[in-house]
Amino acid sequence: LKPKFELTILGSSSALPTSRRNTTAQVLNHAERFFLIDAGEGTQIRMRQFKIKMPRIDHIFISHLHGDHIFGLPGIINTFNLLGRGKDLHIYAPPELQEFLNAIHNYIFTRLNYEIIFHNLEDGGKKLIYENKLLEVYSFPVSHRVKTWGFSFEEKKQPRKLIKEKIEEYKIPIPWRIRIKNGEDYTDEEGNIYPNEELTTDSPEPRKYVFITDTEYLPSIKSYFNGSVDVLYHESTFLQSELERAKETKHSTAKEAAQIANLINAKKLLLGHFSTRYKDCHKFIEEASSVFDGEIFIVNDGDTFQV
Amino acid sequence: LKPKFELTILGSSSALPTSRRNTTAQVLNHAERFFLIDAGEGTQIRMRQFKIKMPRIDHIFISHLHGDHIFGLPGIINTFNLLGRGKDLHIYAPPELQEFLNAIHNYIFTRLNYEIIFHNLEDGGKKLIYENKLLEVYSFPVSHRVKTWGFSFEEKKQPRKLIKEKIEEYKIPIPWRIRIKNGEDYTDEEGNIYPNEELTTDSPEPRKYVFITDTEYLPSIKSYFNGSVDVLYHESTFLQSELERAKETKHSTAKEAAQIANLINAKKLLLGHFSTRYKDCHKFIEEASSVFDGEIFIVNDGDTFQV
Repeated sequence: LKPKFELTILGSSSALPTSRRNTTAQVLNHAERFFLIDAGEGTQIRMRQFKIKMPRIDHIFISHLHGDHIFGLPGIINTFNLLGRGKDLHIYAPPELQEFLNAIHNYIFTRLNYEIIFHNLEDGGKKLIYENKLLEVYSFPVSHRVKTWGFSFEEKKQPRKLIKEKIEEYKIPIPWRIRIKNGEDYTDEEGNIYPNEELTTDSPEPRKYVFITDTEYLPSIKSYFNGSVDVLYHESTFLQSELERAKETKHSTAKEAAQIANLINAKKLLLGHFSTRYKDCHKFIEEASSVFDGEIFIVNDGDTFQV
Repeated sequence: LKPKFELTILGSSSALPTSRRNTTAQVLNHAERFFLIDAGEGTQIRMRQFKIKMPRIDHIFISHLHGDHIFGLPGIINTFNLLGRGKDLHIYAPPELQEFLNAIHNYIFTRLNYEIIFHNLEDGGKKLIYENKLLEVYSFPVSHRVKTWGFSFEEKKQPRKLIKEKIEEYKIPIPWRIRIKNGEDYTDEEGNIYPNEELTTDSPEPRKYVFITDTEYLPSIKSYFNGSVDVLYHESTFLQSELERAKETKHSTAKEAAQIANLINAKKLLLGHFSTRYKDCHKFIEEASSVFDGEIFIVNDGDTFQV
C-alpha cells in the first residue's frame, strides 16, 4: 500500500487576496508528516477551516520574500507558542527570512518556548534540503524579481516486498531477508538458487510533487527532472493576452506553465496564483490545454489533490 | 437625519483564531469615513468578504502590540500599495509600532507609493487624537500585560437646524442665519425679537462608541466618560469561573465587562475576544445580564451594529 501523498490548497490568489482566494499557501501530507509550502496571510485560519493538524507541521518551505507568501508566518509562529509547542520548527527559506522574523520577534514575541531552525536556501542548482526514510525534498532556483526557489518532493525508491508465502515455503532465514529485499537472489544451504523475482514484488513507483511559484518562463529547469512528475503546481498569474505584463513582472502565463509541464513530463498540472483581473479562471484551463495533454486543474482554496 | 454610524466586526476571537472567528479587527463607518480599529491577521480578507470599501480607510487605530491585534497590518499596507494608493495613511498606535513596521518594510516593501503618518499614543489620561467636522476620537490607557489603549469615538454636537419656513416667513438675511444656528435669538431691523426656539430645532444628540480590548477590570476609566455611551465594545476573554486566569493574564470576564458598561452608562454592550476554550458563547450573555440591564450582544465576524 502506498503512503498518503496529498496536497491541500490553502491559498490560490496572487498578490491580492479575494473574498474566496487567500494568498499562496499549501500543505502537503506525506505519510502523515505535514509540510507547509509558503504561508500567505491567513494560512493558520485556512488550516483550521480545512481541519489540517497544525501541530504536526515541523517543516515550512518558503519560496521567496514577498508578502503574499510570508505574511502568515508570524501568526503561525505565535500560535504554535500559544499551543505550547516544544519541538523544533524547521524553516527552509531565503537567508533574509531569519532577519525578517527576528525583527518581528523583537517587537512581538515575548519568548518562544521552542526553537526555530533556519535552513538557508542556496544558489547553484538543485539541492537536497531535507530527507526522511520515505521522502526527499529539493530546492531549485527559479527566476523572479527577487530570489525565488521552487521545491520538489520526491519519494525514495523503497526496497522490494517479500512474498510471505514463498519466504515461509522455502524457510528463508531472517538474515537473508534484507538481502533479498535489496534485490539479491536466495541461495540455500545446499546451493540451490531461487531468483529474486520469485520471492519478491517490486515496490511502488516513487511519486513526485513539484511546486513552482513566482517565476518567469524558465525552460532550463528541465535539467532538474528525470523520469516523470506526478503533479506539477505552476503559477499562472496571467493569460497569453497579458504576456507583456507577465514578462515585466516576471510571472508566467497559463500557456507557459503548460509548456513547463511538458518539459518535465508532468502527468497532472495544477494552475494557481491568478491575477485578480480575471473573473473567469476557466480560460486558464483552455489556454493550457492547447499545449499540454495531461489533466489540468484550476486550484481553489480547500481543494485536495492526490499525488 | 443622522449620519451613518455603523460598526462591522471583522474579528471576534482572542489570541487564537478559530474556523469562524478571526482575531481582533473592527471597522467603523461614520458618515462614510471608514476607521479601522486593530488589525488581526486576515483583516483585509474579511474586508473583502464583508464588502468594506478598503481604499476609504485613511485612519487606523491600534490598541496594543500583540500579534492578534496587528498581524493583519503588513498585508493591508502592501495591498494599499498594490492598489495604487497615493493618499496618506494615518496610524494611531503605541510608539513601537513604527519600528515594527519599519523592520518589515526593510525586508518586504520595496517602496511605498504613499506616506504612512504615525501618531504615537500617549500616557496620562484621555487624549484627543483625531477630529473632523463631525467626530472626535480619543485614546485612553487601559491595563494589560503590555501598554494598551482604548478608543472613544464621539460625535460633536452640531449647530441647531433652521426651520426653513420660519426663515422665509421672516425674511431673515443670510449673515444672521449662522448666528441663529449657534443659538442666538433673531432681532429684525425694527428691533423685534424672535426667540431662537421658534426658528430652529435642536440637532440630534451626539452618539458615542467606546472600544476597550485587552484589559483587566479597570473601573477608573469611569472618569473619562460623562453622559451616556451608546455602544460599548468590551473584551470578555473569560467567564467568572476563570477569574483567576483572567487576573493572571490581565483580561476581563463577562461580568466585569458588564460592570464597566454600568459605570460608563452604556446603552448597549458588545462582548468579544473570547478564549477558544468556550464552545458556547451564550453563557457570556447570561453572565453579563446578571449585572447589566441594557442590550447585550455576543459579536461574530460579519455582524454590524448601529451606534
